[in-house]
Amino acid sequence: MHASVYIATSLDGFIAGEDGDLEWLTGADPGDSDYGFAEFVASVDALVMGRNTFDFVMATGEWVYGDKPIFVLSHRPLDLPNGFPGRAESMELSPHAVAAECDRRGLDHVYVDGGETIQSFLRAGLVRRIIITRLPVLIGSGIPLFGPLRADIDLALVRSTPYENGWIQDEYEVVS
Amino acid sequence: MHASVYIATSLDGFIAGEDGDLEWLTGADPGDSDYGFAEFVASVDALVMGRNTFDFVMATGEWVYGDKPIFVLSHRPLDLPNGFPGRAESMELSPHAVAAECDRRGLDHVYVDGGETIQSFLRAGLVRRIIITRLPVLIGSGIPLFGPLRADIDLALVRSTPYENGWIQDEYEVVS
Repeated sequence: MHASVYIATSLDGFIAGEDGDLEWLTGADPGDSDYGFAEFVASVDALVMGRNTFDFVMATGEWVYGDKPIFVLSHRPLDLPNGFPGRAESMELSPHAVAAECDRRGLDHVYVDGGETIQSFLRAGLVRRIIITRLPVLIGSGIPLFGPLRADIDLALVRSTPYENGWIQDEYEVVS
Repeated sequence: MHASVYIATSLDGFIAGEDGDLEWLTGADPGDSDYGFAEFVASVDALVMGRNTFDFVMATGEWVYGDKPIFVLSHRPLDLPNGFPGRAESMELSPHAVAAECDRRGLDHVYVDGGETIQSFLRAGLVRRIIITRLPVLIGSGIPLFGPLRADIDLALVRSTPYENGWIQDEYEVVS
């Protein structure tokens, strides 16, 4: 199993403002691109995210992951609505245990989402690719994408794609 | 007076590691570009930086600012070596007072450097342009480029320039 990150941040590196506020993202001009999201989701075999991220996704009322299996890192069972179109289950496992479970199920490429989950998978050395879409705004505080590490992580730039509306998408491969 | 920022950061937004460590920057492959530094310095009329940044620059033993006047934000007098090739003076002023002093001296375009100085000039609404050169490395902790704000700051992307060695230079204009 190897993990990829696909996420949007402010220029100062936050994935959400205080209290999870996403107005800086949802209120911004999205242009006419999906920023490769559909193609990226099609490339993964499963998703892993924290409970906060899952609850946020559910609250949007939109389901964008089709029937990809979703592992929600939580000790509480999920309260899925009737007619829920996806496949989601909660589990309370470390990143390496999640990786082992994915291997057992033959799930090779996993999309990890949410600040804490991304940071823990990075620290565990399980992230191979990072795709960041950076918006041209400083929000000053909130939930950071990155966090403390035990050692530097070297990356290689795969591509940098600027969009008409000033968003930039950079793709990196983890090399160490 | 209007200020510009020209600085390098890690992908996780640090301008230096813990204790000011710059190995991630000075030890990285710089490629064969100066990343527009000489042209940028030529475009400014003066520099403003904090005491830590100034002391760091002095410790490098290299003087890259020619005879541009440098305002060092410090309450202590500078201890300049004999034969110091530049023009530097310490002053203990707020960003707006620095701006007023620059206006009085006819210094229009100012290069602000160092984390605290950049953040205070951003909060004071004095920064018009931000040029960030981002290296493909995560260092986990250290001195962040950006800090808390009273309100979001909207930017416009001027250009995004990827370099052969994986460094990316993004230039933004402050729009609000």
